[in-house]
Amino acid sequence: MSDTIFTKIIAGEIPCHRVYEDELVLAFLDIGPLATGHTLVIPKEAAKTLDELSGESAAAIGRVLPGISRAVMHATGASSYNILQNNGADAHQEVMHVHFHVIPRFKDKQAGAGLGIIWKTQEINHDDASELAKKIRDQLS
Amino acid sequence: MSDTIFTKIIAGEIPCHRVYEDELVLAFLDIGPLATGHTLVIPKEAAKTLDELSGESAAAIGRVLPGISRAVMHATGASSYNILQNNGADAHQEVMHVHFHVIPRFKDKQAGAGLGIIWKTQEINHDDASELAKKIRDQLS
Repeated sequence: MSDTIFTKIIAGEIPCHRVYEDELVLAFLDIGPLATGHTLVIPKEAAKTLDELSGESAAAIGRVLPGISRAVMHATGASSYNILQNNGADAHQEVMHVHFHVIPRFKDKQAGAGLGIIWKTQEINHDDASELAKKIRDQLS
Repeated sequence: MSDTIFTKIIAGEIPCHRVYEDELVLAFLDIGPLATGHTLVIPKEAAKTLDELSGESAAAIGRVLPGISRAVMHATGASSYNILQNNGADAHQEVMHVHFHVIPRFKDKQAGAGLGIIWKTQEINHDDASELAKKIRDQLS
């Protein structure tokens, strides 16, 4: 994988507003925030997308997300928040190194409501879904 | 915490299109999918939001997300995908039990492009950010 801005942040070559660090994970404020307290949680392991990340690094991120979310909420006074992780240019991924966004939301819109979500559901066909679920299970076994 | 539809799915009282299960985690197809293969990954632990979830359950979810993402991509032929996890009614959370959405995206829009993301960034003020990062670090230590 080629270097990204995150590789340089992990190496300390580019500064960041660090909020958390351990052996496998680094978290810091996004410099193009959608809202006050918008935080990125990234693995130190260089992986472009989540499907390419080791289970160990992914577990390490999962383990710290609740505490980081609590800390961001308490420090900012946010009322709620979204965790968003984009994989692939088609899915709005900009930096090609896995990153989880923690995006606070505020009752007071002035503090930032930069993430908009549009949610257009489809009708499910249960026969197709049953077949697809089997296909996914087969991939996993 | 009061029961939700997910409590009943975990207990086997309501059927689901299951794609993965272990001691701590259950994954199944969303019945109101944004796209073919839209999957929910949930902890068996009853927690309303991620900040209330144990590190152990959160790590267990993190650990399986790469494999589930790979399996969903392979089974559906998706070109990319988003992981989205909403906390609080203000943040589009509908079922009050932690759930991670795995939402495939397709080059062929017919297969579904139900998730729209609007991204309005703000200017960062580095002095404020530096102070806020310290406040979040203090919460975490």
